[in-house]
Amino acid sequence: MRPAAFLIAATIPAAAWADPLPSWNDTDAKAAIIEFVEGVTDPRSDSFVPEDDRIAVFDNDGTLWSEQPLYFQVLYAVDVLREKAEADPSILTSDVLTAAAAGDMTGMMAGGADGLVEIINVSHSGITVEDFKADAHAWLTTATHPTRGLAYAAMTYQPMLELLSYLRDEDFTTYIVSGGGIDFIRAISEEAYGIPPWQVVGSEGSTTYEVADGTPTLMKEGGISFVDDKAGKPVGIMRHIGQRPIFAAGNSDGDFQMLEWTTAGDGPRFGMLIHHTDAEREYAYDRAGHIGVLNQGLDEAEARGWVVVSMKDDWTTIFGKAKR
Amino acid sequence: MRPAAFLIAATIPAAAWADPLPSWNDTDAKAAIIEFVEGVTDPRSDSFVPEDDRIAVFDNDGTLWSEQPLYFQVLYAVDVLREKAEADPSILTSDVLTAAAAGDMTGMMAGGADGLVEIINVSHSGITVEDFKADAHAWLTTATHPTRGLAYAAMTYQPMLELLSYLRDEDFTTYIVSGGGIDFIRAISEEAYGIPPWQVVGSEGSTTYEVADGTPTLMKEGGISFVDDKAGKPVGIMRHIGQRPIFAAGNSDGDFQMLEWTTAGDGPRFGMLIHHTDAEREYAYDRAGHIGVLNQGLDEAEARGWVVVSMKDDWTTIFGKAKR
Repeated sequence: MRPAAFLIAATIPAAAWADPLPSWNDTDAKAAIIEFVEGVTDPRSDSFVPEDDRIAVFDNDGTLWSEQPLYFQVLYAVDVLREKAEADPSILTSDVLTAAAAGDMTGMMAGGADGLVEIINVSHSGITVEDFKADAHAWLTTATHPTRGLAYAAMTYQPMLELLSYLRDEDFTTYIVSGGGIDFIRAISEEAYGIPPWQVVGSEGSTTYEVADGTPTLMKEGGISFVDDKAGKPVGIMRHIGQRPIFAAGNSDGDFQMLEWTTAGDGPRFGMLIHHTDAEREYAYDRAGHIGVLNQGLDEAEARGWVVVSMKDDWTTIFGKAKR
Repeated sequence: MRPAAFLIAATIPAAAWADPLPSWNDTDAKAAIIEFVEGVTDPRSDSFVPEDDRIAVFDNDGTLWSEQPLYFQVLYAVDVLREKAEADPSILTSDVLTAAAAGDMTGMMAGGADGLVEIINVSHSGITVEDFKADAHAWLTTATHPTRGLAYAAMTYQPMLELLSYLRDEDFTTYIVSGGGIDFIRAISEEAYGIPPWQVVGSEGSTTYEVADGTPTLMKEGGISFVDDKAGKPVGIMRHIGQRPIFAAGNSDGDFQMLEWTTAGDGPRFGMLIHHTDAEREYAYDRAGHIGVLNQGLDEAEARGWVVVSMKDDWTTIFGKAKR
């Protein structure tokens, strides 16, 4: 290093030299993210946003980790159902439940969304919230994905982990806002994403407080009391966070209203859609499919100024190594 | 000051000399609070609790501010109802609503809790969450209490503001967990208590996301979807915070389960009941009354190790001057 360069380097913080998004290719998507973050964090910029308003929300399934061949929570529910049915086959009171316990995915999917809810209701009930989280955590860190062979907890997207860290380093607060169950995600959110339980918003099951043999418990009762999807996402955000975010990322039309509401606010806003374009390293799907359907988002992203991230073109790597 | 004392003073941080609770008399209650906080924050203590687990929850009505002659939110709802009825008398579809709009408190209270819900439903609907919060904020800071003559927002308890600040200074996170409406409290929580919207848990009304003339809005629709009271408080805490607090403060049997669940956890725990014993400076009520009834809490506090704070004996002053 020449002396002059050394002197300059010594006066500039190390962070200014480090690439905050090393697993992102140098494409428009990365440039747009960095331009946005630099604008809202620069006190001299017209785009400056105070720290308390730097709220970023992220969908989970298909945005922060994979959602194929099925939402991980459904795969977990099927495993729990199978285990419960071995002990007590009488719980298999419908064709969908019988198919699920037998590993017949076609029969199981024939029940549609209602069938999936039925499976979750049977498998996620009669257990305290704390025991449920411990059990889900054990499954997420030991069971392996059917085709990738990775533990489910390892199927987070490295570029998105970097984005979460980058935003937090710039004094954003990062939230998960998922159609998945809030207790299921909280079982792993701190470990997988560095996101504590109180920054997780999700669908909610019915939970009851009771004192059993002198011990107060919160018991999961089955039944879904709030669906945090589509128009439910802005409702869930307002309920849990109490104000509108300035940054929202999703991957399916279930995230449309979250991006719509976020980016309709005054001042600088960022909407991002993760586009599953990488059949080789992950999966390729969008307009057609049984999960993560993305139609309206693709149709309207350009007009709305939302950034569409191509996993194939914009990311150097897919699966994460470690959070920081 | 003698030179030796001066030298000692110079080496000890100023905070060690300052009384964190100057509006508390030097009674057992204050000593118990300070002993608890010093234990959980001392890394060398067996009672040490890491910062992420230092979660403290506070009821609002009757714990952080007054709740007489009626919950402030009900008084606000009556004012809004009267205003709406002047424009459109046809909204007064029941005896309770007619009584409320006419200022007939006896007729209004004859409807019991259902009547209060009816008033809140009519007055808190057909408005966006953001407009509602702005309107509630204006009322809380300009309308005055019927007998005390203070603005409602000024009827916070100075000793409790000091306690909130003390806990936050010691790296606790302070939450409100109220039977009152979450949007109503969020209208003033940052200003009155230094508590941001995402640290407010409360009862929830039905909110709908809709796009009106191209503008996405969250509209309050009337109807109550979640009651954050009694056994609902642990449920609300688990939903919003996702873990059990170590410190809980309330003033009525509506807070019993919150204290029960909080103090049943492992490790050091603190349960506090504010006892309204000061007829002169505030109000005196407990076992009998139309609001803030405290029976089970008084009966069981001693056996459960909960601290009962007498407003008359333990507090030098009642109403707050300013938050910090």
